[in-house]
Amino acid sequence: MPYPEQFTGFQVNGPETWLQFHKNEFQPKPFGDYDVDVKIEACGVCGSDVHTISGGWGEQKFPLAVGHEIVGTAIRVGPKVTLIKEGERVGVGAQSYSCLNCRQCKNDNETYCKDQLDTYGAVWPDTGIVSQGGYSSHVRTHEHWVFPIPEALPSTDAAPMLCAGLTAYSPLVRNGCGPGKKVGIVGLGGIGHFGVLFAKALGAEVWAISRSHAKEADALKLGADGFLATSDKDWNVPHAMTFDLIVNTANSFEGFDLDAYLSLLDVHAKWVSVGLPEGEEGIKIRNQTFLSNGCFFGSSHLGSRRETLEMLQLAADKGIKPWVEQVPISDKNLASTLTRLHANDVHYRFCMTNYEDQFGA
Amino acid sequence: MPYPEQFTGFQVNGPETWLQFHKNEFQPKPFGDYDVDVKIEACGVCGSDVHTISGGWGEQKFPLAVGHEIVGTAIRVGPKVTLIKEGERVGVGAQSYSCLNCRQCKNDNETYCKDQLDTYGAVWPDTGIVSQGGYSSHVRTHEHWVFPIPEALPSTDAAPMLCAGLTAYSPLVRNGCGPGKKVGIVGLGGIGHFGVLFAKALGAEVWAISRSHAKEADALKLGADGFLATSDKDWNVPHAMTFDLIVNTANSFEGFDLDAYLSLLDVHAKWVSVGLPEGEEGIKIRNQTFLSNGCFFGSSHLGSRRETLEMLQLAADKGIKPWVEQVPISDKNLASTLTRLHANDVHYRFCMTNYEDQFGA
Repeated sequence: MPYPEQFTGFQVNGPETWLQFHKNEFQPKPFGDYDVDVKIEACGVCGSDVHTISGGWGEQKFPLAVGHEIVGTAIRVGPKVTLIKEGERVGVGAQSYSCLNCRQCKNDNETYCKDQLDTYGAVWPDTGIVSQGGYSSHVRTHEHWVFPIPEALPSTDAAPMLCAGLTAYSPLVRNGCGPGKKVGIVGLGGIGHFGVLFAKALGAEVWAISRSHAKEADALKLGADGFLATSDKDWNVPHAMTFDLIVNTANSFEGFDLDAYLSLLDVHAKWVSVGLPEGEEGIKIRNQTFLSNGCFFGSSHLGSRRETLEMLQLAADKGIKPWVEQVPISDKNLASTLTRLHANDVHYRFCMTNYEDQFGA
Repeated sequence: MPYPEQFTGFQVNGPETWLQFHKNEFQPKPFGDYDVDVKIEACGVCGSDVHTISGGWGEQKFPLAVGHEIVGTAIRVGPKVTLIKEGERVGVGAQSYSCLNCRQCKNDNETYCKDQLDTYGAVWPDTGIVSQGGYSSHVRTHEHWVFPIPEALPSTDAAPMLCAGLTAYSPLVRNGCGPGKKVGIVGLGGIGHFGVLFAKALGAEVWAISRSHAKEADALKLGADGFLATSDKDWNVPHAMTFDLIVNTANSFEGFDLDAYLSLLDVHAKWVSVGLPEGEEGIKIRNQTFLSNGCFFGSSHLGSRRETLEMLQLAADKGIKPWVEQVPISDKNLASTLTRLHANDVHYRFCMTNYEDQFGA
């Protein structure tokens, strides 16, 4: 396999033409002592990809190849790399850099490092080069953000875990999800379906909470112990103050009765939102909202390297099976797949495959 | 001392005439086996008193005597009372009842009991009798909510601790305030000044945070290690992600830049609001607000019996000295004192005294 000077990826030129993917060569950042080059074989399709290229999250640097649920083979490792071996099957998620020296980095909070860089759309310092994601032939990443994939996990199952899976897993384990705990997962999309799978695998009693009953059968098939539809009258009343944790994966606060949701929480229990609605949308809160149970509202951002490795091992050990629809990568298929994702027509994750057809073996 | 069939208190007839106090007799709830009758000698003046009688917190049951920072003498104890002795100097705060049987009550969370009753303005079940507060000759309270006052504490210092003090103390101890922690107290009013005093006594590094520098000298005199004025340009920047806990005692979100405040918090650290603004006032939040540090926003309601006893002992042991202005109780003095409190003209707590002049020895 010839080693490329340049990588190749499906790039978008801007939000006006966000469904037109152009196969271009691009220059990766200079190869560093701790870097790993990954030849990509599969990449999950994340809501972030749509938000980014369609302009929903504001201005971005184009041309841009998105995709940050990457699995492939480590084909080159820098001279100081110790965490990854050449030839290993590895993953790369939504984050590609953190300083590893600050207080956050030293406390398994490297996802909150102020120097953190995203896998795509970030500018590598000193180079001006914009990081490019996994709708590409290769990705070049610091070893800290490259994860060996356990043998038992198919690549197309592991890929969507690297953003959607971790986004659900981290707030669960950081907030006590486990045996004897009652955990709610609000919203059954890509992240929410992982929330149900992982909360169950961690031993909790799991309730899926959705607007209607449309996804009830799916939730139970995924392993949920119960299902609540917020369109039902007084849906929250029988469960008042019984939940130990709620992870909110919904992508919008539209029509959201936050008081009703928060009434489910036990004293001082937490609501953790992991979706990032587009634009300036928010929700009004009052101190009174939190008063009857002293509950807490917060967000969570991805997770640490340690958590990523633990999550992948848990998935391998427990045979966790996400619902993944595989799609061979091409300009046309990216357009149709992102169109479907934009319309929430997915149960519950897409993964682009057949990279060798586009980028060679 | 003759034992009264009826108690006497300074009542208000409604929000239109909330500064007209009428000395009336009223019927207390029937004396129960666990009840304690307290002959009152002092009562702190709380912002809640103003919110309640002026209509700011909505409809109330009138005529009503407010006041819930009560110190006096236990002059009668029920046959099943074990926590309080007749003749003891005791306090009663803002809460007067909880079921003591539910999960909340059994976990030191009796302030979140769904059957909890307030010291004034609550309807005693089965009787229709409205509870009356401490601008009165006596108060009749379940022993669980009656607290022996350590000898070293003057009554007029202990009284304001029973609502304002506890409201500040409970979120501090429940969220790790102690040596090695950096704690912020937002707002330097009655509760905030207790926040500084208690956080310091608990061993934390304490920063007072206020809109202007007007109260900086007071904050430092109270023991704060530092002071931040949010009117200063980039006031938050040097302290980004360094606070372990912030207790917000401000009574309004007007002009509040919540993002700037929350940027002070370390990863997953908590913001706890204890003020209850009037009306429907709230603040808009976005998930993004919480994303750079994964922080949490919540509220806190009073505190438990155990915490009340610990707080009073801490205050006695450490010689904590709140700033209390004493005012002899009378209809005129209540009107002038609540007028001043309504205008925030207080440094930092009023306490009504000289009860024997109005209610006899």
